[in-house]
Amino acid sequence: MRRTLKAAILGATGLVGIEYVRMLADHPYIKPAYLAGKGSVGKPYGEIVRWQTTGNIPKDIANQEVKPTDPKLMDDVDILFSPLPQGAAGPVEEQFAKMGFNVISNSPDHRFDRDVPMIIPEVNPHTVTLIDEQRKNRDWKGFIVTTPLCTAQGAAIPLTPIYKNFKMSGVMITTMQSLSGAGYPGIASLDIVDNALPLGDGYDAKTVKEITRILSEVKRNVNEPEVNEITLDATTHRIATIHGHYEVAYVTFKEDTDVRKVMDSMETFKGEPQDLKLPTAPEKPILVTTQDARPQVFFDRWAGNPPGMSIVVGRLKQVNSRTIRFVSLIHNTVRGAAGGGVLTAELLVEKGYIDKR
Amino acid sequence: MRRTLKAAILGATGLVGIEYVRMLADHPYIKPAYLAGKGSVGKPYGEIVRWQTTGNIPKDIANQEVKPTDPKLMDDVDILFSPLPQGAAGPVEEQFAKMGFNVISNSPDHRFDRDVPMIIPEVNPHTVTLIDEQRKNRDWKGFIVTTPLCTAQGAAIPLTPIYKNFKMSGVMITTMQSLSGAGYPGIASLDIVDNALPLGDGYDAKTVKEITRILSEVKRNVNEPEVNEITLDATTHRIATIHGHYEVAYVTFKEDTDVRKVMDSMETFKGEPQDLKLPTAPEKPILVTTQDARPQVFFDRWAGNPPGMSIVVGRLKQVNSRTIRFVSLIHNTVRGAAGGGVLTAELLVEKGYIDKR
Amino acid sequence: MRRTLKAAILGATGLVGIEYVRMLADHPYIKPAYLAGKGSVGKPYGEIVRWQTTGNIPKDIANQEVKPTDPKLMDDVDILFSPLPQGAAGPVEEQFAKMGFNVISNSPDHRFDRDVPMIIPEVNPHTVTLIDEQRKNRDWKGFIVTTPLCTAQGAAIPLTPIYKNFKMSGVMITTMQSLSGAGYPGIASLDIVDNALPLGDGYDAKTVKEITRILSEVKRNVNEPEVNEITLDATTHRIATIHGHYEVAYVTFKEDTDVRKVMDSMETFKGEPQDLKLPTAPEKPILVTTQDARPQVFFDRWAGNPPGMSIVVGRLKQVNSRTIRFVSLIHNTVRGAAGGGVLTAELLVEKGYIDKR
Amino acid sequence: MRRTLKAAILGATGLVGIEYVRMLADHPYIKPAYLAGKGSVGKPYGEIVRWQTTGNIPKDIANQEVKPTDPKLMDDVDILFSPLPQGAAGPVEEQFAKMGFNVISNSPDHRFDRDVPMIIPEVNPHTVTLIDEQRKNRDWKGFIVTTPLCTAQGAAIPLTPIYKNFKMSGVMITTMQSLSGAGYPGIASLDIVDNALPLGDGYDAKTVKEITRILSEVKRNVNEPEVNEITLDATTHRIATIHGHYEVAYVTFKEDTDVRKVMDSMETFKGEPQDLKLPTAPEKPILVTTQDARPQVFFDRWAGNPPGMSIVVGRLKQVNSRTIRFVSLIHNTVRGAAGGGVLTAELLVEKGYIDKR
Ligand SMILES: NC(=O)c1ccc[n+]([C@@H]2O[C@H](COP(=O)([O-])OP(=O)(O)OC[C@H]3O[C@@H](n4cnc5c(N)ncnc54)[C@H](OP(=O)(O)O)[C@@H]3O)[C@@H](O)[C@H]2O)c1
Ligand SMILES: NC(=O)c1ccc[n+]([C@@H]2O[C@H](COP(=O)([O-])OP(=O)(O)OC[C@H]3O[C@@H](n4cnc5c(N)ncnc54)[C@H](OP(=O)(O)O)[C@@H]3O)[C@@H](O)[C@H]2O)c1
Ligand SMILES: NC(=O)c1ccc[n+]([C@@H]2O[C@H](COP(=O)([O-])OP(=O)(O)OC[C@H]3O[C@@H](n4cnc5c(N)ncnc54)[C@H](OP(=O)(O)O)[C@@H]3O)[C@@H](O)[C@H]2O)c1
Ligand SMILES: NC(=O)c1ccc[n+]([C@@H]2O[C@H](COP(=O)([O-])OP(=O)(O)OC[C@H]3O[C@@H](n4cnc5c(N)ncnc54)[C@H](OP(=O)(O)O)[C@@H]3O)[C@@H](O)[C@H]2O)c1
Repeated sequence: MRRTLKAAILGATGLVGIEYVRMLADHPYIKPAYLAGKGSVGKPYGEIVRWQTTGNIPKDIANQEVKPTDPKLMDDVDILFSPLPQGAAGPVEEQFAKMGFNVISNSPDHRFDRDVPMIIPEVNPHTVTLIDEQRKNRDWKGFIVTTPLCTAQGAAIPLTPIYKNFKMSGVMITTMQSLSGAGYPGIASLDIVDNALPLGDGYDAKTVKEITRILSEVKRNVNEPEVNEITLDATTHRIATIHGHYEVAYVTFKEDTDVRKVMDSMETFKGEPQDLKLPTAPEKPILVTTQDARPQVFFDRWAGNPPGMSIVVGRLKQVNSRTIRFVSLIHNTVRGAAGGGVLTAELLVEKGYIDKR
Repeated sequence: MRRTLKAAILGATGLVGIEYVRMLADHPYIKPAYLAGKGSVGKPYGEIVRWQTTGNIPKDIANQEVKPTDPKLMDDVDILFSPLPQGAAGPVEEQFAKMGFNVISNSPDHRFDRDVPMIIPEVNPHTVTLIDEQRKNRDWKGFIVTTPLCTAQGAAIPLTPIYKNFKMSGVMITTMQSLSGAGYPGIASLDIVDNALPLGDGYDAKTVKEITRILSEVKRNVNEPEVNEITLDATTHRIATIHGHYEVAYVTFKEDTDVRKVMDSMETFKGEPQDLKLPTAPEKPILVTTQDARPQVFFDRWAGNPPGMSIVVGRLKQVNSRTIRFVSLIHNTVRGAAGGGVLTAELLVEKGYIDKR
Repeated sequence: MRRTLKAAILGATGLVGIEYVRMLADHPYIKPAYLAGKGSVGKPYGEIVRWQTTGNIPKDIANQEVKPTDPKLMDDVDILFSPLPQGAAGPVEEQFAKMGFNVISNSPDHRFDRDVPMIIPEVNPHTVTLIDEQRKNRDWKGFIVTTPLCTAQGAAIPLTPIYKNFKMSGVMITTMQSLSGAGYPGIASLDIVDNALPLGDGYDAKTVKEITRILSEVKRNVNEPEVNEITLDATTHRIATIHGHYEVAYVTFKEDTDVRKVMDSMETFKGEPQDLKLPTAPEKPILVTTQDARPQVFFDRWAGNPPGMSIVVGRLKQVNSRTIRFVSLIHNTVRGAAGGGVLTAELLVEKGYIDKR
Repeated sequence: MRRTLKAAILGATGLVGIEYVRMLADHPYIKPAYLAGKGSVGKPYGEIVRWQTTGNIPKDIANQEVKPTDPKLMDDVDILFSPLPQGAAGPVEEQFAKMGFNVISNSPDHRFDRDVPMIIPEVNPHTVTLIDEQRKNRDWKGFIVTTPLCTAQGAAIPLTPIYKNFKMSGVMITTMQSLSGAGYPGIASLDIVDNALPLGDGYDAKTVKEITRILSEVKRNVNEPEVNEITLDATTHRIATIHGHYEVAYVTFKEDTDVRKVMDSMETFKGEPQDLKLPTAPEKPILVTTQDARPQVFFDRWAGNPPGMSIVVGRLKQVNSRTIRFVSLIHNTVRGAAGGGVLTAELLVEKGYIDKR
């Protein structure tokens, strides 16, 4: 049996932080040993946290005191999960990595550093080797690994088997994203009651940028230009759902493509986490439903086991001989953030990147 | 000056009915003379109606009693507006038309009768001549004219100038529709709080069918097959907004097409209602916004003058040389139903189809 | 160890039904053996059910077929849980009880039959003896036992220790109730978005009537008139929450009463289920919080263990020497319905009322 | 005819500010001449404002540039409306008043200054004479007048005729307040979707404090202690409504009191604004409804003429011989803020307090 690893969770009181706490409370070998925050430092976790998720706060964790984000206090930590806000995350993560911490970040700050992996374990696990380059470049004992934008993952995961197996030429995505995707306090209530809130050009663009990078890594033998030939676009919105990003994708191909084969490729899709039987790996990363009017955010966001780790795809349709449509639903703070982070940690453990500093 | 025409509003207590009442209360020559209902017959309109719209119930109308849907009581009515529920509408409308009433229906029941026009006054006003055919076929003194599905209008209106001016090859639409589009009681609250509700295959299909017909009528010299060569698809949903259907459209072309020209074609788009200066015609049927993150349902659904008669288009983007994206917002019960009905009535008056029975 | 008892759940696809299924799936000795419905008969439970609760559908139950409400098919059933709609429930329950079934009903139909207990196990467990009377009166081998209106329970449970220990003279309640309290489809979305929906005189009155009966049973030695001297009133509403009834209570007394003593009486309140250590009994039926701005519906409705079985009371305040205020939150479909039903079943088992028919 | 007065609106882009703009756009003699903001300075009002109200932005105002809060630029302004945020308002208002501006403030900062009136024109118009004292005390040419907390007004207005005419001994209020009451961005969406948000001790207390002051001013001949003998309490909440505070009040009396007489006193209630026929005075400040399940936030908040200036009271009930219940609904940003401010300005004009500085 594997020795127990100690994890610190920065931003443990945040929307992603609580999912780390929830998932690690039951983890076979990673223990949530250190809960860090900012405004809530010094207070009992159970009193200060907004537990905007399922189940009740694990009893033994409720009484822990929230600690400062201070490396000196985390001497014996094996893994540092960092769901810190954009801007705040960057320098903190760098400081910790430099001091030898193994940082798994959900924040965007280092996602596009040339030597930093941006990992979806089922999709581009081979990119973990960027860590070696990173350590060499920066002369660090620790490292930074990132997970992509939740919205990008909601499209990139189902697009991976499609891109691998068919001659895709375009993807046009329309999203309906949940409030928790914006953190807390996040979206003002007056922006969302009786409204759909467009996220605008900036958010559209970063979604496309991240999907593009992920797909380019899917076929690593293939020269990058191929992805760039694909038309990728996203129109992004928030609606008044608590968790779960719902995305409609129209996909075009360079040749006739049968939607049933596309569906097959999704249903049978699996990756290293499944092969390695990682504890947090869902049996199927993509669950395909053929029920009409499904998936639905409320009913399907916790799909899979562990709950929220499977993406649900539905409404598959042959639009014309070279166009299909599908809809996907991802639990943004689980699969799209904390769950992705835990799965990445497990992958790194398996690949030998995480041992006692 | 034009003589005052008397209108009956069937289903006057419904979500579309109230917009007829609101708009006709101030109309220069059409007066709401007869308010009919079903469950609410015999009760004072102001007490029974759920006034789920803007402004307060017009004072003189609040005290009117709701009457039965009985042609014998409507002897002197010049125009009969019929926003009755699907199924109930069909036979009632036929009965009234046969008796000589001029019926303008918002219901789907007769939309696809071969000799029944389905009119958006700015888009296919020439199809009113089907009335002549209808009267001949059926030996009726009255007639039935319909308005299309609100969701179809939200796409078809902005697509009209595009289809007229550019070589369109495909349209892929994703909708976020309001609750009022389903009538009352309509959508169960438990289906929509913390959820996005897919409307499913049936609704997707009827949206596509109606857009197809409208576009085919836009270019009447053109042989129908052309429209059928266009790929049209829709993925439809409800979200927890009260009024206003928001639609994202990706449009592809057979040749390079400049989004700025597409934008121009929308901004300058007008039709017979504008030329004829019909009282309910908005100056611009399509208002184009270049503000980021607009239109928004809450803030833009009442756009134009009369309020709610203009569609707002925004987020226009050149996706690639042959693909553009736009977003549209239509007030479903106004432009998409009652307002469209009143505008159609004005057009028919102007064209001589409505005179004393 | 106790032998396993077989339970049938009528209305198993309803909002209360799903909580029975969820809670019994893990029950130490009551197994959900028979799932009955109406519109969904013949379909796999997992496909037809709207799982509007926490966790995923228990795997082994998802594939069960929904069966008709037919006593002939339930020969070996020990307990029949009946969360059927008002009106439909009454005759069905009578028929089953007559045939020897032990019926635990959440419906209002038999609540005010003179010989039918209306039980909250911590509050009036002694009233189970009405069963003996009932059997005698009606010459039945089975019986009907009911649970009270969820809204009434949300007030009656915290009022029980107050009424027992202090000289109460009045209670004025204002409620904010959840959508699930109305069943499915229940409340129309257009009645609740951007609105608070008053439930009106009828609902106010039945809430008061049930609280009155419960309190009168609390002090059984005491002559009924005492309760009738208490002023009881309720102003009831629905708001757009999914589960959880939130109630504000102002309580007046005939003599000076210290809110801290009232708080103590709630915190230390327990009943037979706790003494008997019934499996579904929460350690504390009432959890008192002193945090400002708590309880909150979203965060506290699943309080206790089993989740949702404890009522959370907060915002306790000494208004004047003879008036206090408190706020309570009850999970309406759990503590207020299915959980109350399961706990009642356990009580009846313990008291020897349930054995093989 | 009265000469046109020029008004400046500070915080013109805020939720109260927009109602000032909307109401003054049509005002017979007060013109919105100067729109001031902070973050939005320099931008066209129509582009920057979140028009979270009814109707469209008045055309001539949409193009005005938002100006800084600078007295030097407002030389010719007759009335200064100040709906600035708490904290920011205080010093600004003092500075302007000192310079000779006539300031009508909706902010709490000066409400409890001893020489500053806190006015509801129908309730305590005589307190305007505090202005004379204020000018003397402070040696100012201008002055500050305030309007009370919207929540306090929702109770204080209907309580005024009750307190005047009956021997009231207690009032226990439970509120369901709208999101707009908290300004923008105000309440986080994650605090309100599927939740009711208690506002906590601080907000409860200030509501009581303001009601107490208003009632003490109602009977000015009466020694203050009388009000203090009344038990007043409030339990305050926000729910996911956009505008409109809904409040349930239980009122107790020292002697038997007939609810029909209480109802009469509300229905016939009027004050100086009605006697003086001020342009913004509703015919009836209190509209009483006897319909079951009314008032409702969505349908009744714009009651009266001008819309939103009448409070709607309903669900009146004789609870026992000395207790009644009623429910009230106030449009918080209109009657409770901007509309109250405009009505106060009209009162001050009438009483000669506003002339050219
Ligand atoms: N939400 C999602 O769906 C999602 C998905 C993928 C990625 N992400 C990324 O994950 C990160 C966290 O998002 P979130 O939604 O969890 O945010 P959040 O709810 O706003 O939580 C932020 C957390 O960070 C802490 N914090 C804030 N500033 C800090 C600082 N300067 N130093 C140390 N700790 C600080 C806060 O602690 P206190 O409460 O103690 O102040 C809180 O625990 C973001 O970078 C986001 O882009 C989020
Ligand atoms: N809502 C939209 O956005 C929209 C847009 C385009 C087209 N439409 C179409 O417009 C029609 C009306 O929609 P809605 O949303 O207004 O529906 P609604 O809110 O459900 O109203 C239905 C109205 O019809 C009356 N009614 C119902 N059954 C009747 C019968 N058998 N005979 C006579 N009157 C009857 C009702 O009267 P009582 O209240 O007295 O029972 C009520 O006034 C539908 O065909 C719909 O497809 C709606
Ligand atoms: N919801 C609450 O918070 C709550 C609390 C306390 C008590 N209650 C009481 O519990 C009962 C159920 O409430 P609910 O909210 O669960 O209702 P619901 O969601 O509407 O569910 C009703 C259930 O009953 C079945 N059903 C309907 N008509 C039937 C008939 N004629 N014969 C047999 N089965 C029938 C339905 O089956 P199909 O789906 O197969 O048609 C469904 O499973 C009501 O009496 C209610 O007053 C509810
Ligand atoms: N909302 C209600 O129901 C209500 C009812 C009664 C009383 N009130 C009181 O009315 C006031 C305004 O409330 P609100 O809801 O309208 O707030 P809001 O929506 O937050 O608006 C605030 C306004 O003040 C401006 N502003 C902010 N800081 C400023 C500063 N330092 N100097 C100058 N201007 C500044 C803002 O301008 P920019 O947008 O340009 O930054 C904005 O126009 C508050 O004092 C509130 O307590 C509100």
